[in-house]
Amino acid sequence: MSYPRYTKLIDSLPATVPFVGPEAQERERGAVFLARLGANESVFGPSPNAIQAMRDAAAEIWQYGDPTSHALSTALAAYHDIGVDNLVVGEGIDGLLSYIVRMLVGPGDAVVTSDGAYPTFNYHVLGFGGTLHKVPYREDHEDPEALMSKAAEVGAKLVYLANPDNPMGTWHSAETITAALEALPEGCLLVLDEAYIEFAPDGVAPAIDINDPRLIRMRTFSKGYGMAGARVGYAIGQRDLIRSFDKIRNHFGMNRAAQAGALAALKDSDWLDSVRAQVASSRTSIDDIARKNGLSTLPSATNFVAVDCQQDGAFAQRVLMALLEQGLFVRMPFVAPQNRCIRISTGTAENMQLLAKAMSMALQQARRG
Amino acid sequence: MSYPRYTKLIDSLPATVPFVGPEAQERERGAVFLARLGANESVFGPSPNAIQAMRDAAAEIWQYGDPTSHALSTALAAYHDIGVDNLVVGEGIDGLLSYIVRMLVGPGDAVVTSDGAYPTFNYHVLGFGGTLHKVPYREDHEDPEALMSKAAEVGAKLVYLANPDNPMGTWHSAETITAALEALPEGCLLVLDEAYIEFAPDGVAPAIDINDPRLIRMRTFSKGYGMAGARVGYAIGQRDLIRSFDKIRNHFGMNRAAQAGALAALKDSDWLDSVRAQVASSRTSIDDIARKNGLSTLPSATNFVAVDCQQDGAFAQRVLMALLEQGLFVRMPFVAPQNRCIRISTGTAENMQLLAKAMSMALQQARRG
Repeated sequence: MSYPRYTKLIDSLPATVPFVGPEAQERERGAVFLARLGANESVFGPSPNAIQAMRDAAAEIWQYGDPTSHALSTALAAYHDIGVDNLVVGEGIDGLLSYIVRMLVGPGDAVVTSDGAYPTFNYHVLGFGGTLHKVPYREDHEDPEALMSKAAEVGAKLVYLANPDNPMGTWHSAETITAALEALPEGCLLVLDEAYIEFAPDGVAPAIDINDPRLIRMRTFSKGYGMAGARVGYAIGQRDLIRSFDKIRNHFGMNRAAQAGALAALKDSDWLDSVRAQVASSRTSIDDIARKNGLSTLPSATNFVAVDCQQDGAFAQRVLMALLEQGLFVRMPFVAPQNRCIRISTGTAENMQLLAKAMSMALQQARRG
Repeated sequence: MSYPRYTKLIDSLPATVPFVGPEAQERERGAVFLARLGANESVFGPSPNAIQAMRDAAAEIWQYGDPTSHALSTALAAYHDIGVDNLVVGEGIDGLLSYIVRMLVGPGDAVVTSDGAYPTFNYHVLGFGGTLHKVPYREDHEDPEALMSKAAEVGAKLVYLANPDNPMGTWHSAETITAALEALPEGCLLVLDEAYIEFAPDGVAPAIDINDPRLIRMRTFSKGYGMAGARVGYAIGQRDLIRSFDKIRNHFGMNRAAQAGALAALKDSDWLDSVRAQVASSRTSIDDIARKNGLSTLPSATNFVAVDCQQDGAFAQRVLMALLEQGLFVRMPFVAPQNRCIRISTGTAENMQLLAKAMSMALQQARRG
């Protein structure tokens, strides 16, 4: 008999990594990247107050974090004008997605998402034995109508919808999201991933009754708040649903300094505003760089821009590789026809100068084939 | 139809918390604790180098942590003289226990542990639908022979054994652990939780062939290294087993500053030595305080001491409550007859003075009933 006796499900899964980290690529190429524009991290960093709070917390790291993240949860509840029992803080949206999938999805259960949307969600669905049903993007947007009709067709337990979307950066209006929720089939839960909501125009986040049990919203300190490495996300929803996380979550899973940092970050709305302005400015720079190179960009409500290389995925892949060779860490969509684009995170003026220089060379190289 | 459609397993689970955090108790009593001696945290703190590394990393927290924890993993592999593919870094032992249980345990699968041992392990087993079989402690030690014969009897997939033990602080020799491994029934995996190993006498950690697939060892930076709030643990084992974690783990789950802090902590063996000495000294203080109050203590190879209150669980509970009322955060074993004890973490000289003062009052109060 072999050791150990894995579950059948685990035996069937591949050992995989949803994303290869830039550090692994740096080790392979034997040099660090000159610009880190591939993971939609915020190069503008967290609020100085958040940095200070984390520094101050370092000496107290011998203490476990508060398992209820009480101070942060209370502040978030006030910020959103909801009850503290309407949200749960967790180890990033990735961790929270794992929990919500685990709560609902068992072997063979149907889950619906967009083909080319967030792979880590898919990883968790497959990791709990769910069956993924994918609908294509429609004109480079997630397609809420198609998602909902697929969900009805397959009797889905979960539908995943990111607004704004990653990797395309496109978005839907609050009205469209509300309409999607109304079209949600009975017995299905909508996971609305709003990781990039801080970069979206005002009013894109729909006002939805917090007691509506059909919806769970995911938010994060990784993007607008610039704390990707801290691992702080939260889920917002009806209180019974939120309470169910306590059945399975890793109660002592939060880093104590991260809790303190997120609290300070939340309070510094000026910093968030300044990041938004810098992101908007950098999006314009990426647009300019693309246009000067005869390319176009997709409108973005995020901290990244999808640059349309206007040929097929193989061509975009060559552009990507040429940028990587020049020391720019960038990524690209996985699925056609979205994979005609490369996805470039917003960055500093220096990052943009590097990008401008690298882009024309990358295109020359890609066109040589 | 109700929303959402949880799995049957999740529907059957209670919303629970393996441990109530001291912060919740502080909020309830309306005052902070004067001494935090209940969660076996290291009040001596992490190495100053680790604190500095975390402070330095705070400004770079906008970057995700390396999903392979490469620098830390490489250093740990060198430290243990094993391959880097023989270990996986994760979000504390709690997180790693969740992964190993998820990999092996499905509904109805048998798992063996000691009655009164680590409740978070039990929480994960029940959370994945496993059936727990418990054997009693034997003279306040975990009973490897009983664990192994129970495992054979019930066809267990997993056996949990902590050495040194929590909550009693007792330990077995390397020879006893090796003998337990030899007695492990076919098809069963031994989870050896060595969270407190840094406080044990030399030679307590058995030398076991790293290619032995019957064993997985859990280590942590939460105890000896004083970084409980950082959430850094690791599992050591045969490479195929370790690689299986990649099927389900949260690849980007590590806090970046915690990775840097753990690496610095690992390198500062002088600090660890000084913590060991302070812990040993504080254990002696707790022994003295107990003796002066007519109580006895159990020998400990950990950073805490089980103080035998020499009556029943109800009496120990009264002692515990009286200590809590006086501002000392302490805990106690859950199960008779071990719950005749209270469990006190080692602390500073100031902590010990407070304890000395509080203990005689607590006993007077408990004896009044």
